[in-house]
Amino acid sequence: MNQSCQLSDIIKLVDGSLHGVSADGCVSSLNTLIDARNDELSFLSNIRYKADLSATHALAVLMTESLFDELKPNHCGVIVVKDPYLAFAQVQRYFYPQAKSSGMRHESASIDASTIIAADVDIGAGCVIEADVEIDSGTRIAAGCLIGKGVKIGKDCLLHAGVKVQEGCVLYNRVILQAGAVIGSDGFGYAWSGKEHLKIPQVGRVVLHDDVEIGANTCIDRGALGDTVIQQGVKLDNLIQIGHNVEVGALTVMASQVGISGSTTIGKGCQIGGQVGTAGHLKVGDGCQLAARTGVVSDLEEGGIYAGMPAMPHRLWLKTSALTARLPEIWKKTKNIK
Amino acid sequence: MNQSCQLSDIIKLVDGSLHGVSADGCVSSLNTLIDARNDELSFLSNIRYKADLSATHALAVLMTESLFDELKPNHCGVIVVKDPYLAFAQVQRYFYPQAKSSGMRHESASIDASTIIAADVDIGAGCVIEADVEIDSGTRIAAGCLIGKGVKIGKDCLLHAGVKVQEGCVLYNRVILQAGAVIGSDGFGYAWSGKEHLKIPQVGRVVLHDDVEIGANTCIDRGALGDTVIQQGVKLDNLIQIGHNVEVGALTVMASQVGISGSTTIGKGCQIGGQVGTAGHLKVGDGCQLAARTGVVSDLEEGGIYAGMPAMPHRLWLKTSALTARLPEIWKKTKNIK
Amino acid sequence: MNQSCQLSDIIKLVDGSLHGVSADGCVSSLNTLIDARNDELSFLSNIRYKADLSATHALAVLMTESLFDELKPNHCGVIVVKDPYLAFAQVQRYFYPQAKSSGMRHESASIDASTIIAADVDIGAGCVIEADVEIDSGTRIAAGCLIGKGVKIGKDCLLHAGVKVQEGCVLYNRVILQAGAVIGSDGFGYAWSGKEHLKIPQVGRVVLHDDVEIGANTCIDRGALGDTVIQQGVKLDNLIQIGHNVEVGALTVMASQVGISGSTTIGKGCQIGGQVGTAGHLKVGDGCQLAARTGVVSDLEEGGIYAGMPAMPHRLWLKTSALTARLPEIWKKTKNIK
Repeated sequence: MNQSCQLSDIIKLVDGSLHGVSADGCVSSLNTLIDARNDELSFLSNIRYKADLSATHALAVLMTESLFDELKPNHCGVIVVKDPYLAFAQVQRYFYPQAKSSGMRHESASIDASTIIAADVDIGAGCVIEADVEIDSGTRIAAGCLIGKGVKIGKDCLLHAGVKVQEGCVLYNRVILQAGAVIGSDGFGYAWSGKEHLKIPQVGRVVLHDDVEIGANTCIDRGALGDTVIQQGVKLDNLIQIGHNVEVGALTVMASQVGISGSTTIGKGCQIGGQVGTAGHLKVGDGCQLAARTGVVSDLEEGGIYAGMPAMPHRLWLKTSALTARLPEIWKKTKNIK
Repeated sequence: MNQSCQLSDIIKLVDGSLHGVSADGCVSSLNTLIDARNDELSFLSNIRYKADLSATHALAVLMTESLFDELKPNHCGVIVVKDPYLAFAQVQRYFYPQAKSSGMRHESASIDASTIIAADVDIGAGCVIEADVEIDSGTRIAAGCLIGKGVKIGKDCLLHAGVKVQEGCVLYNRVILQAGAVIGSDGFGYAWSGKEHLKIPQVGRVVLHDDVEIGANTCIDRGALGDTVIQQGVKLDNLIQIGHNVEVGALTVMASQVGISGSTTIGKGCQIGGQVGTAGHLKVGDGCQLAARTGVVSDLEEGGIYAGMPAMPHRLWLKTSALTARLPEIWKKTKNIK
Repeated sequence: MNQSCQLSDIIKLVDGSLHGVSADGCVSSLNTLIDARNDELSFLSNIRYKADLSATHALAVLMTESLFDELKPNHCGVIVVKDPYLAFAQVQRYFYPQAKSSGMRHESASIDASTIIAADVDIGAGCVIEADVEIDSGTRIAAGCLIGKGVKIGKDCLLHAGVKVQEGCVLYNRVILQAGAVIGSDGFGYAWSGKEHLKIPQVGRVVLHDDVEIGANTCIDRGALGDTVIQQGVKLDNLIQIGHNVEVGALTVMASQVGISGSTTIGKGCQIGGQVGTAGHLKVGDGCQLAARTGVVSDLEEGGIYAGMPAMPHRLWLKTSALTARLPEIWKKTKNIK
């Protein structure tokens, strides 16, 4: 964690304007409105937490101009910014910069002699790094990670405890894998022979591009042929399933427990809610927004907002789900029609 | 496993009354109605399994007074109890008391010199215990567990194989973690900068209070600021996702594959069915019962019984789902209305 | 990987007939239509990818007679087969036969002296093999696997990285476990004592029969009493939850994120889509097909095709979901009825 700074530094960092307190005030950290002490900053980005503002002891609070105009708090300072949530992120990234690797190799790690690992890479206790693995500068690998034969890992990646990256998979730079994630499990591919499910060897890879983050215990299957590809800047939450030969477009985010079936293509910049599921061999267009638990059974046009199972336009879903709750009323009205 | 005992011991243990066999009969263990031998006990708590009763060879069967009156079995003894399922639990806990720790430290475990670990704690093969960890008396840690820097673990906990508890998280006493559980993964927090999803450092902890049990491969994210808190006696099944800054109230139980989004508060004593999902920043009141796969998108009042997506009162859901199946009929009736 | 072969070998292997190229052409591997080079084979089994055929450089393409008649490609050879997907599997299995075990024991593995392990079994780095484990010939265990006390593993099994098989569980022959799978976690069993959820010791096992495959991070709970049983040839995808005392019948397949609650019996030869959930103590008959996300709350007759929540016949579900989308129309029509 970085040391304290002055409010004036914060204002520069977040491109904000200060109200109600002096810019030479000292800030030690950032906290919630409720928990902040008088040398801490806080933020109000969700109107739900408006009531907490009046109780806060924070030195200053990040908020939008419109909230400042509406609430006009005079018991704390205010830093007016365009996007208080973004400003919160910027301040936290200042106080908690990502740790640097130090070249630590725990003696209990098993590192194959054929690996090519940059001198400053950290490798935690109990890790297993198999033959022909390459790991580039600045990457940190926490305890108990299992890195299979021929895996390539770029610069400044962070693998949390107990991650498995299986044979031949590729991580570009600044990839983060949360604990227990599995990269490169076999895709679910069988052919029915008439008497058994014949396993189809899964010989493709998983490729995770720059700045991808993968959640805890999330599983990404390797391609059957060719690769499963997660493009630049994608963020996947915990316990997600990505089938073989899926492609997820750049900057798409998925909340937890989503399941994407094999060979489906998800566009760029999509926002996919929790527990969404898609069938296989589909295309979800760029910029789609899928409400939690949407069930996708056919291609979706780019830029659409969808919900429901099967997926329908979100507006229609709002109507149909309100009317579903009124089915008893509809039933009553139609009961006497013959 | 404990040695055999007499029926008279069992009767005291479960506060029951014996019928049809002698109290000095010897009981070696408990089994299902179908598999029980004539020195074993069994139980009938679910009326579905009534037919199995006539086939049983059990020495005696735990059941309620009303079932005894109805079924009057004369080929086996009966122990009448108020709650046969509870009695089953009590008997099993007698025969299979929790194993005691012995102070075993496997030589392959990596234990940092700065840790403070009670003498009787067990640490299995391949475990990694990082700097400044504290572990209290009676706790058993199975093979391959990864315990991060500064973690605190109370008395008589049981961590099954391959559990990950990440930096700074706290377990109180008698906490059980099933295999592969991840405690303290980063919350899913990003701010959109206009061109990328800026990761927000997740600097809170996970706190698991007394008697919490967490299922296999379940993931609990650390708080963004402040903590994610699982209160006393909560039981979470496998493959559950708990987002950052969630609080789960005492004695709540959740079946597998539930997803609770960030900053949502679940009340005390709730019963949450499998595959339920909630949006973030909500409150589910004390004592709520949520049927499997309920989708929660707004606050729920305490004591309510809910189902459906979006959540509605369970009774209404029963009606609407019955009527959904009759939509073809409704459609037919309304077809000619203009 | 096996070496190249002639088209004539392939034709024998898949029982096909060759058109448009010479049978002595040399084949080095198989690839997608788009990526295949002119010494590679490809296949067309899904009509969605018809357009890729005209762009292919493949030496020859596996397809059905009817597609060959319809498309008559003349820029590449064609191998006419009954089932091109099966032929694809057969060719891939020829080029990528399963690796043989070599008897490798990594020096970092902890193997208890009481184990009985065939000489040719492979045991990867960081594995923990506890007391009284038996492992039969030909089995390969990848890095970081944790095998509990008394586990029995048959011939020619393959355990991927970081799998946990817990105390007393049994794997028959040719079982494959994907990375991070948990076999033998405690079932979710508690009895309410009036003030706490009393944990019921889970003393049964998990038994995985011949040719079972279990996906990455999937969890299979041990029986409370008696066993959880996965019969011969079952294939389970990633992140599935199987509750205690479930039985899954031979050759059934389940897509990812399915949840089967305790004591439910799934028949033989069922096909279960992603994110399906079932309540406990139910029977799903042999040969049932459940569409993705079906919610099963009562017994299902054998051979049925179901969808929806709660489950209904698939045909009815198609109608009701189409009509759900027309509820606004139905509402409008019935608005003026009193």
